[in-house]
Amino acid sequence: MKEPYKNEDEIVIIGKGNVASHLVKALSPYMKTLQIDSRSLTNLPSRCRVAIIAVSDRAIREVAERIKGKVDLIAHTSGSVPIEILEGTADSYGVFYPLQTFTKDVEMEYSDIPFFIEGNNRNTVNILSGIAHLVSDKVIEADSGKRKYLHLASVFACNFSNHLVDIADGILKEKGMDYTLLLPLLKRTVAKLESISPREAQTGPAMRKDIPVIDSHLKMLEKNPELHDLYRTLSIEIMNKSL
Amino acid sequence: MKEPYKNEDEIVIIGKGNVASHLVKALSPYMKTLQIDSRSLTNLPSRCRVAIIAVSDRAIREVAERIKGKVDLIAHTSGSVPIEILEGTADSYGVFYPLQTFTKDVEMEYSDIPFFIEGNNRNTVNILSGIAHLVSDKVIEADSGKRKYLHLASVFACNFSNHLVDIADGILKEKGMDYTLLLPLLKRTVAKLESISPREAQTGPAMRKDIPVIDSHLKMLEKNPELHDLYRTLSIEIMNKSL
Repeated sequence: MKEPYKNEDEIVIIGKGNVASHLVKALSPYMKTLQIDSRSLTNLPSRCRVAIIAVSDRAIREVAERIKGKVDLIAHTSGSVPIEILEGTADSYGVFYPLQTFTKDVEMEYSDIPFFIEGNNRNTVNILSGIAHLVSDKVIEADSGKRKYLHLASVFACNFSNHLVDIADGILKEKGMDYTLLLPLLKRTVAKLESISPREAQTGPAMRKDIPVIDSHLKMLEKNPELHDLYRTLSIEIMNKSL
Repeated sequence: MKEPYKNEDEIVIIGKGNVASHLVKALSPYMKTLQIDSRSLTNLPSRCRVAIIAVSDRAIREVAERIKGKVDLIAHTSGSVPIEILEGTADSYGVFYPLQTFTKDVEMEYSDIPFFIEGNNRNTVNILSGIAHLVSDKVIEADSGKRKYLHLASVFACNFSNHLVDIADGILKEKGMDYTLLLPLLKRTVAKLESISPREAQTGPAMRKDIPVIDSHLKMLEKNPELHDLYRTLSIEIMNKSL
C-alpha cells in the first residue's frame, strides 16, 4: 500500500449472504462499510483500499479477478480456501475468517467471535488484524494449513452435533415429543465445556460402559439400521477412549 | 398413603452420586431433605413418607427391597429403568427423572430442568409432580415407554455431541490449537435452536452439498479411518435429509 491504512478508510464487503451481511453489521459501527453484491461490482468506489470477498468458495477467484487492480488489499472469508487463490489479484491479499455460524436476521454478539487472519506479508496481517480487533477480542493468526483444520473441527463439533440433535428430534417426534425438551440439557452440555474439557465432560451409558442400557438402546433402534449403526459406532468410540 | 402428603414432610434422597447430591441441593431450600448413602440405610428416619432412589440402574431394585415397608412412596430417577422395578416395594411407587447432566461441585440453575414423572396411580403422580414443581417450571408426565426414548434422544443430542467436540479437540490439538476456539460457535449452535429447529438450523458443507470441501476434509482424515468413515457417514445422512 502506498499510504498507511487507516480505519477511517472505507471497507467494501462483497457478497449478500449471511457472512457478508453480518460482517457489514459488525464493522459498520466502527468504520465506513459498504456492501456490494458480487453481480454489481461496477459500483465499487473509485478509491477502494480494502475489499473482503464473502461469497461461496467457488466464486472467490472470479470475484477477485473482476476487482483486480482496483483494490489495495483483497481478503476472503472462507475456512477451506487457501490464501493462494487471491495471488496476483492485489499487492496485498489475505484471509479474514470468522469462526461462527451466521443466520440471517438474527441479532448476535460479535465480540467473542474468533477471527483467524492470514496475509501475504506482515503489513497485510496487521491491517486485517486491526480491522478484526475493532469487532472482536479474539484475533488469531492462522495460516491456510491451520485454518482448514479449524474448519474441519467445526464441522464435527457444530454441523454434525446439530445433525445429532435433529436425529434426537426425530426419535422424540415419533413419541409425540420434540427436541425442545432437550434444550436445558444441551445448554448445560456446552456450558460444562467452559470449565472442563470434552474428554473430562463425557457422560452417558458408553462412558460408564453400561452394556444393558446400550443394548436396550440398540434394540430400540433396530427398525432403523442407519441410526442403529451410528449409535453403535459412537458408543464403541467412547468406550475405547475411556479405557 | 394414609394421610395426605405435605411438603413439610421430610424427603429422603438415597445415593451419593451427582444426581443425588444435586437433588438434595435443589430440594433443600423448599423442604426438609435428608441424603442417605445406600450402604447406610439403617439411618432411614422411622417415619419416612417419600424416598427417592438416585443410584446406578442395577442397584435400584436392591435398594428398594431394603427399604420395603418403611416408606410410603418410593421413586427412582433413572431414564432407562421401567417403573415396574419398584413394584411390591411400597404402596406408592414411581419415577422422578430429571433430564439433565449433573457435575459434582458445579453450581447450576434447576428451574429449567424438565422433570419427567410417572406413578403407579394418580395420587403418586400428583405427589411427585408437586415435589418437582417446587424446583422446576417444567414438570411433565411420561410413562416408561416415553422416558426411555427421552433417554435415547439425550444420548444422541448430548453424550454423542460431546464426543464430537472431543474429536474436534483432537483434530485441533494436532495443529497446536484446542476446542476452546470453538466455544463461541458451539454456544451459538445451541442458541439458534431456541428459535429454529435443528433441521432448519443445519449448516455446513454437507448441507450445501459442497462436494469439493467434503472431499478435501475426507482427504485430511485419510490417516484416521475411524474419523474418515464417521465424517462420511454423517455427511451422507445430512445430504440425504436435505434432498
